[in-house]
Amino acid sequence: MTTEAEEKALRYRRAQSVTTAEEITEKENKARRLQFDKPCHKPRDSLFSWSSEFTNFTGLVNWGFLMLTIGGLRLFLENLLKYGIRVNPIEWIIVLTGYNEGNRYQFPSVILLIFSVVPAVTTLIIEKGVAVDILSEKLGLSLQLSNILFVLILPVVVLHYKGPEFSFVGITTVCMIYLILFLKLWSYTQTNHWCRNGMKGKMAKNKLRRQSLSAPNWKSFDDDKNDAIAAARLVKYPDNLNLKDLFYFLLAPTLCYELNFPRTTRIRKRFLVKRLLEVVFGVNLVLALFQQWMIPSVTNSVDPFSQMDPIKITERLLKLSVPNHLIWLCFFYLSFHSFLNLMGELLHFADRKFYGDWWNATNISVFWSTWNMPVHVWAVRHVYKPITERGYSKVAASTVVFLISAFFHEYLVSVPLQMFRIWAFLGMMVQPPLAVISRFAELRLGPRYGNMMVWSSLILGQPLAIMMYYHDYALDHFKPIQ
Amino acid sequence: MTTEAEEKALRYRRAQSVTTAEEITEKENKARRLQFDKPCHKPRDSLFSWSSEFTNFTGLVNWGFLMLTIGGLRLFLENLLKYGIRVNPIEWIIVLTGYNEGNRYQFPSVILLIFSVVPAVTTLIIEKGVAVDILSEKLGLSLQLSNILFVLILPVVVLHYKGPEFSFVGITTVCMIYLILFLKLWSYTQTNHWCRNGMKGKMAKNKLRRQSLSAPNWKSFDDDKNDAIAAARLVKYPDNLNLKDLFYFLLAPTLCYELNFPRTTRIRKRFLVKRLLEVVFGVNLVLALFQQWMIPSVTNSVDPFSQMDPIKITERLLKLSVPNHLIWLCFFYLSFHSFLNLMGELLHFADRKFYGDWWNATNISVFWSTWNMPVHVWAVRHVYKPITERGYSKVAASTVVFLISAFFHEYLVSVPLQMFRIWAFLGMMVQPPLAVISRFAELRLGPRYGNMMVWSSLILGQPLAIMMYYHDYALDHFKPIQ
Repeated sequence: MTTEAEEKALRYRRAQSVTTAEEITEKENKARRLQFDKPCHKPRDSLFSWSSEFTNFTGLVNWGFLMLTIGGLRLFLENLLKYGIRVNPIEWIIVLTGYNEGNRYQFPSVILLIFSVVPAVTTLIIEKGVAVDILSEKLGLSLQLSNILFVLILPVVVLHYKGPEFSFVGITTVCMIYLILFLKLWSYTQTNHWCRNGMKGKMAKNKLRRQSLSAPNWKSFDDDKNDAIAAARLVKYPDNLNLKDLFYFLLAPTLCYELNFPRTTRIRKRFLVKRLLEVVFGVNLVLALFQQWMIPSVTNSVDPFSQMDPIKITERLLKLSVPNHLIWLCFFYLSFHSFLNLMGELLHFADRKFYGDWWNATNISVFWSTWNMPVHVWAVRHVYKPITERGYSKVAASTVVFLISAFFHEYLVSVPLQMFRIWAFLGMMVQPPLAVISRFAELRLGPRYGNMMVWSSLILGQPLAIMMYYHDYALDHFKPIQ
Repeated sequence: MTTEAEEKALRYRRAQSVTTAEEITEKENKARRLQFDKPCHKPRDSLFSWSSEFTNFTGLVNWGFLMLTIGGLRLFLENLLKYGIRVNPIEWIIVLTGYNEGNRYQFPSVILLIFSVVPAVTTLIIEKGVAVDILSEKLGLSLQLSNILFVLILPVVVLHYKGPEFSFVGITTVCMIYLILFLKLWSYTQTNHWCRNGMKGKMAKNKLRRQSLSAPNWKSFDDDKNDAIAAARLVKYPDNLNLKDLFYFLLAPTLCYELNFPRTTRIRKRFLVKRLLEVVFGVNLVLALFQQWMIPSVTNSVDPFSQMDPIKITERLLKLSVPNHLIWLCFFYLSFHSFLNLMGELLHFADRKFYGDWWNATNISVFWSTWNMPVHVWAVRHVYKPITERGYSKVAASTVVFLISAFFHEYLVSVPLQMFRIWAFLGMMVQPPLAVISRFAELRLGPRYGNMMVWSSLILGQPLAIMMYYHDYALDHFKPIQ
């Protein structure tokens, strides 16, 4: 604004040959450079000084990456020197199939897995019965409820009587598959129920419409015709109630049933082969990491936990958190990217949103709604929305979702371990308060701190829960080694 | 280009009510959404699939930071559990001052440090002698040369005869200070030599100019006047040859002498206090890290090095590299930012470029020319340029700089350890080939890989050299513990 005045003053000073202090300094520097001592110094700030306004620290990202790599490599070598090679493929086969000296040619897990077809088909039969009016709506619903509860309880009962014949991995797989079956059949039953209700409502509406008189709109008639062409291709209730449709849904990488899944037009061979290789090598990597790194770390951590020495517990927990977290990351990629995409590609299933970008989650709520999309979508569609639609508050609906989620986490841990502790349930129940804290951190300190809290709870929370279970398990099953 | 034709075809199709496949799919999706099964699936790709074009992985930077923190914390606790608290301030005082039971009230390092004033003043006297023509240029030069070589040799000789009276840290400090003195006196002598030559040249030129006749240019006359005002404020040879000027240079945070250093107008108190606190706390931090982390790591690494077991050596090297690197980073910040800025602020010294952004260096040459600016500027001004100005090639000049640098590295390690091995010298001599390789990596694989090579050589090279020395030192001084 004052440039004109300044310029005028400058011109005046020049005319008067008055030299300002800056000009003298400028001249002085010039004069210095004309001296014979070859000066090499200039007035300037250090880069770390705020006044230098230097901000390029991109090299430090490479530094971080390198330090992580070096740390990882060192841990790998230390592990190798301390424990030798513990990877043993024969052990995997025993653990995975439950085959060993004691129960030769008995594969109880495999039998249970095959048996899972029975309740699935039962659901279809009941649904068909309701559709053709052999069963009343009310009776059908109670039969379905009993059937899916049976799915949930069966592994518990079988394990109670035949426990020693199961391997740990076998029974975990059974529990996982039966839980997935439970969620799928719930969705199947509820969706068919919606369809029946919808059909009844439509019939009532059509009756009303036929009674009223309205001038036909030709443009909308044309649209209606196209809509009709499209709609004609769609499967309608009760045509969906057949074995092929049911088994497609049971195998499809989703927990939510619908009558017309979006489909792809072809199977991409390269994509399929890549995912298949990832699954094959990835499973071996996870098993190797587990045998070589995780088991020794967990075993070594029990003693400090019994002694309740806080420094030792923290040290062990931090030591355990690294392999546990890496295995979890591998497991996530293998399950949610490689395996589910493999199934999707094989079944022409077009919706591949199995996970959101949870790694950028700025609070814990976002993490829980993005890391496992099939379960999240199922919970929203089959628990949250039905509750809010009945007029209950969002808080109530969220609480129910959390309780169910906590129950299933406990189910997946307690049943295989045959130890009904409350650690997994508690682990889930601290999530809502953590979500509030992380949301607060995000708002007050910025999204970076929210994201760090999400990562911290993920990296440190899991090994804590694992230690709790393993500690109790070791106390129950092993004698002190002293 | 074909949009017009396409549009025409589309209009035609619309007119004919012909519906394309995409339109049918669009309609189908719309129709699906109108069904009663509340569909929740859409055709879409997983985020990790290339086809999704998703690239936001900023959360992974936070992940890396957190994993480093957790790893660091774990190492800290492990160290505490394994070695207890080893930090011992009394030991520092003994090590730093060389005070112990054996040589009570004898501080040989301190005496040597005070004695360093003698050769400095000698240089001034000789320089003065040459300036007032008591000494001839040639005699002066050889006296100066003898004097600065004496500076370099004195610590070696004293240590040879009085070795056991010195502490390791004491003699390292003496070597460091005497080396800095050597470089400063070299610069002082050479700069004064340039000034004398310049004055002689100017006198010859002025004689020539006075003989020639030229019309005075008024504009340039005005400039000349201003120049003259500026130049009048500057100190000119031989007015600079006094004790005050010499001691200012010896204390100033630079190795290059010039007659008129750029000056600041005031001392920033806040800045001064911050740097002072950094120095006080930083030195304690480095010493604590050294006692607690570095010494046990080095001690534990000697055995694998003797056994020449490659896996164990690698593991130990990686384990040592972390504390060593962190200490080096602290040392760098303390010396080049905190301490030199403190001295600069106290002495009104305006040129604070003590380091460039070496953390972004994309090849090893850039690293060597930016991490230690005082030495780099000295080497360019007093070795590289004088050699190239005499007509020698740049390669020859670079080689000489490297040889001198390698010699000084060896000097700083071998003299205090009293072990004339070649490891530090070799460490410096592998830098030119590494520079070529890293330049190649930068050009072929991109700057990120060049930068990673710089960091790797820094993180892994130093502990390797330290291990070599410590191994030899332990073999000489300790008996096997078996």
